[in-house]
Amino acid sequence: MSPKITGELLRQLRQAMKNCKYFSEPIQAYIIPSGDAHQSEYIAPCDCRREFISGFDGSAGTAIVTEQHAAMWTDGRYFLQANQQMDNNWTLMKMGLKETPSQEDWLISVLPENSKVGVDPWIIAADQWKNMFKALSSAGHSLVAVQDNLIDAVWPDRPERPSTQLRSLGLDFTGISWQDKITTLRAKMSERKITWFVATALDEIAWLFNLRGADIEYNPVFFAYTIVGMSTIRFFVDLKRLSDPAMREHLQLDSPSKPELSIQTFPYESVYTELQAICAALGPKDKVWICDKASCALTQVIPKTHRSPIPYTPLCLGKAVKNATEIQGMKMAHIKDAVALCELFAWLEKEIPNGNVTEISAADKAEELRSQQKDFVGLSFPTISSVGPHGAIIHYRPLPETNRTLTVNEVYLIDSGAQYVDGTTDVTRTVHFGTPSAFEKECFTYVLRGHIAVSAAIFPNGTKGHLLDSFARAALWESGLDYLHGTGHGVGCFLNVHEGPCGISYKTFADEPLEAGMIVSDEPGYYEDGSFGIRLENVVLVVPAKPKYNYRNRGSLTFEPLTLVPIQMKMMNTELLTQKERDWVNEYHRKCREVVGAELERQGRQEALEWLIRETQLII
Amino acid sequence: MSPKITGELLRQLRQAMKNCKYFSEPIQAYIIPSGDAHQSEYIAPCDCRREFISGFDGSAGTAIVTEQHAAMWTDGRYFLQANQQMDNNWTLMKMGLKETPSQEDWLISVLPENSKVGVDPWIIAADQWKNMFKALSSAGHSLVAVQDNLIDAVWPDRPERPSTQLRSLGLDFTGISWQDKITTLRAKMSERKITWFVATALDEIAWLFNLRGADIEYNPVFFAYTIVGMSTIRFFVDLKRLSDPAMREHLQLDSPSKPELSIQTFPYESVYTELQAICAALGPKDKVWICDKASCALTQVIPKTHRSPIPYTPLCLGKAVKNATEIQGMKMAHIKDAVALCELFAWLEKEIPNGNVTEISAADKAEELRSQQKDFVGLSFPTISSVGPHGAIIHYRPLPETNRTLTVNEVYLIDSGAQYVDGTTDVTRTVHFGTPSAFEKECFTYVLRGHIAVSAAIFPNGTKGHLLDSFARAALWESGLDYLHGTGHGVGCFLNVHEGPCGISYKTFADEPLEAGMIVSDEPGYYEDGSFGIRLENVVLVVPAKPKYNYRNRGSLTFEPLTLVPIQMKMMNTELLTQKERDWVNEYHRKCREVVGAELERQGRQEALEWLIRETQLII
Repeated sequence: MSPKITGELLRQLRQAMKNCKYFSEPIQAYIIPSGDAHQSEYIAPCDCRREFISGFDGSAGTAIVTEQHAAMWTDGRYFLQANQQMDNNWTLMKMGLKETPSQEDWLISVLPENSKVGVDPWIIAADQWKNMFKALSSAGHSLVAVQDNLIDAVWPDRPERPSTQLRSLGLDFTGISWQDKITTLRAKMSERKITWFVATALDEIAWLFNLRGADIEYNPVFFAYTIVGMSTIRFFVDLKRLSDPAMREHLQLDSPSKPELSIQTFPYESVYTELQAICAALGPKDKVWICDKASCALTQVIPKTHRSPIPYTPLCLGKAVKNATEIQGMKMAHIKDAVALCELFAWLEKEIPNGNVTEISAADKAEELRSQQKDFVGLSFPTISSVGPHGAIIHYRPLPETNRTLTVNEVYLIDSGAQYVDGTTDVTRTVHFGTPSAFEKECFTYVLRGHIAVSAAIFPNGTKGHLLDSFARAALWESGLDYLHGTGHGVGCFLNVHEGPCGISYKTFADEPLEAGMIVSDEPGYYEDGSFGIRLENVVLVVPAKPKYNYRNRGSLTFEPLTLVPIQMKMMNTELLTQKERDWVNEYHRKCREVVGAELERQGRQEALEWLIRETQLII
Repeated sequence: MSPKITGELLRQLRQAMKNCKYFSEPIQAYIIPSGDAHQSEYIAPCDCRREFISGFDGSAGTAIVTEQHAAMWTDGRYFLQANQQMDNNWTLMKMGLKETPSQEDWLISVLPENSKVGVDPWIIAADQWKNMFKALSSAGHSLVAVQDNLIDAVWPDRPERPSTQLRSLGLDFTGISWQDKITTLRAKMSERKITWFVATALDEIAWLFNLRGADIEYNPVFFAYTIVGMSTIRFFVDLKRLSDPAMREHLQLDSPSKPELSIQTFPYESVYTELQAICAALGPKDKVWICDKASCALTQVIPKTHRSPIPYTPLCLGKAVKNATEIQGMKMAHIKDAVALCELFAWLEKEIPNGNVTEISAADKAEELRSQQKDFVGLSFPTISSVGPHGAIIHYRPLPETNRTLTVNEVYLIDSGAQYVDGTTDVTRTVHFGTPSAFEKECFTYVLRGHIAVSAAIFPNGTKGHLLDSFARAALWESGLDYLHGTGHGVGCFLNVHEGPCGISYKTFADEPLEAGMIVSDEPGYYEDGSFGIRLENVVLVVPAKPKYNYRNRGSLTFEPLTLVPIQMKMMNTELLTQKERDWVNEYHRKCREVVGAELERQGRQEALEWLIRETQLII
């Protein structure tokens, strides 16, 4: 991976920062956040502004350019990758380390007095704007909204915004009609005396209308906004996408069943003016719900006295708790995904000794095998296929210039997943095709112990995920080891592979209590820079638990693994496992063999079945 | 315990709420917080306003009285106690339960439109004021500062503010002179470009000047304020207390070594006007540090542009990390305390079968035995001495009308501690003098497993205490049990038994990272309402750990128990313990026997020594 040369681009950007065409006075710093106008984690090529200016293409990061400096904040998953992708015009700010200043503190330390810091108000979230605004103001600087995006100004061949074909999903996939979702939303609005609700997150809008798109790679969403009132529904989307008769029928555009379920459609771009018009007509008591992570631009359209910012919208919470149909779909998707992975590992085992399997060809093979499964749509994120030292680059993605051959001498880590019409998958396995070293096995076993500690945990109803995070780390901590990322994220159902509002992390924000029906990942790891990476990830479903007692009738929860792919026994040092942990591994493998074995048999995939049976022997 | 009759008092308070003598317009609700003007947890009798109006005397609680309602918010430790102490004019609001509204939400639900909610600005913290102000404003109500306290207005025989004799501590107890503490504080101020610092917390002021008082029962503090500038020190205190020549010498009042270490003294009450004068003379860039938990009244004296609110002051952080002298003192205090407790338990074992030991006489005996130890000053909190069902009242304090006799049939829980000039103790043991039931033993063993899980945990430098809280609960959770309080609090050194900014709790606020030298309690429990209570508490010191590896050179920490009192083996179901846990118990008991045994021998307390040896046999 060679770094992007950014000297000339930064010169142009700094020129634009001084250019009165964009604003009345020059700005001394410009913030380039990661997201799009919907604060999406994965973004369309037209929105990859931070990557364009810096070269760093990880999923999380914020760039700030001043007259003298260019700095990039990102987290532990991306330290190595960012270092490799950025040239020495850039300083990497390692978030999570004690010595790393926050963006605010850093700006205050480098800016001359009374500086102006600019940002595009469409791509900064309202809560981030607020924090930054406060911190800069209290230090005598100001944060200013720059309406023209300055990266776009220096990006001559910026791609078009995509507008892919929409797909409607029936009740057999969604379990609840969009009409019923609207009704539930309105009930929550009237409970809280809210008259309008503005939806800006793309996955929430897709979930609400039981629609999917392909505007953003890996995420089956489409660019849209929605404003729901107590009797009207306004839907902002490229109108060309609604011409198909089946689509019009799905949305009942031509013959709504009830007037309050009639959808008014508007061009995507008109959301700003339409929201202005709504706000101009608000009564004195009218309240508008908008997520505090929505764009600053749209949030500030709503007068402060009418604005009711919320950390999570009712759609976000509704989407997180999967209904019976969605759970069934997720289970089916994971069985199909396991079939593909059993085939992949059987194939790798056979092919690697021939020396012609690379990180890229292994990833391609995984995709090819997944694509043979029913209702496959695409991958759910770029496959992390990494050998040896590449495994320590937490979100490594093999490129032709970095591509490494799989051998019997190095640890192989593959973190991959797919979108099927019935569900989304995300699974990581770390394997060795020769003989792992004692240290590799030791680390793998600590990671496995952490994985089991979370997966088998029983905890009271109402527990937030951050209270489980240390369970995943205890075995590593005991030996002085750790990993610099969270333990798990919410997973959508044929939606984004990362979703809120629940998760398992030492970070305590963005963390609603776990409830039965939520689906999260459980993925502790260990990374030895320059040598190897280990991660073990299952997607798990929150289910009721029935322990011996029931203190204060609160009820208890635990996790049921949806991912059913064997965990390589060769990597385990079973002497470091307790009997309970060995029992967990054996029971997990029994279930893999039973459930995935039956499907492999049904699909007639004999070689993979034999591999599965071999890989699910009892450990003692 | 019979409840306080509050009908007439509430009538008078509601009258005062309508009385224009106090403000221009009637108020519809009045908030009565728990604290004093220093936001102390334990308060002097003159400040027990919430208790006076409601009868509830727990350490935490907020009352709100409206024209129709009187409601009390408190946490799980006090649910039973509050129910018993309050008459049916009051509604108990159980904090931490999902269905319990916040104070703000409750007010909004019960108040008529455009209501005024009053509060005394001296006894509400600035951050609480801010949150309440925002929530009420956004619902169309207003929060108003009522200068005359309305409880005082209906409290004819309110006690005087105490002014006890001050005690100065030499370097042999404090390790650092007050002059050096001032110099360190100023270095931190100049690092952050702060020109003034306002100290309002009583324990911070006592720690800063190496002074102790006895104004508040159990807490060796005194009423004072301090304002430190880069070249001046203003000390606000009842001036009569500074007449003693030794005290004047300690503070160098008559012959300061350097001008910038000269202390100017002022009457306690003049802090408001003096701070006003300082603020009137501030330069445009001057910044004033004040804790965001300081009183709203004092905080608002500082103009917003000059105010730099901080969650913890440098004094709070400095005080939390004990120096070598303080650690040595704390160790000595805990050995003396263990001597007294060994004697107590030996005495109880002998006396209980005679049927004449009660909760109160056992607590008195504990105090008597402690008072025989060198440098004993007093108790560090009211002794919780509770038998059978009383054990489930988490902060139970025996009163003549509730006093119960200790028998061989019920579990006995004693949570007690003392102030010695060299340190503060806090220890809980749960014991049975006959044969505990299988269920009592089972619960005790889960609590013990939780205690050990925290005490033996190894974790990276920089870890916050809340990340360890679930370790204390995992064994209980596995069986569907839990406890509704945090796991540990910071402990002062001959100072408050509860102190910030570190702790171990599922609550994530008020939580600075743990560092070597910090001292916290480790006290999981289990409470079976109406039947028994179990808690097991040691005070533990954060110390460096040396595990096998050292990931990214971060270093690791663990805990060393300072409390050295045997844990009753009769209460353990050793079959539920792992070998590692049994090893921990044996090693702990070995240390108790070695360290406390030597001191018992030195003091010639033979009976207690024999008890100690009996109670520290190996378990297998």
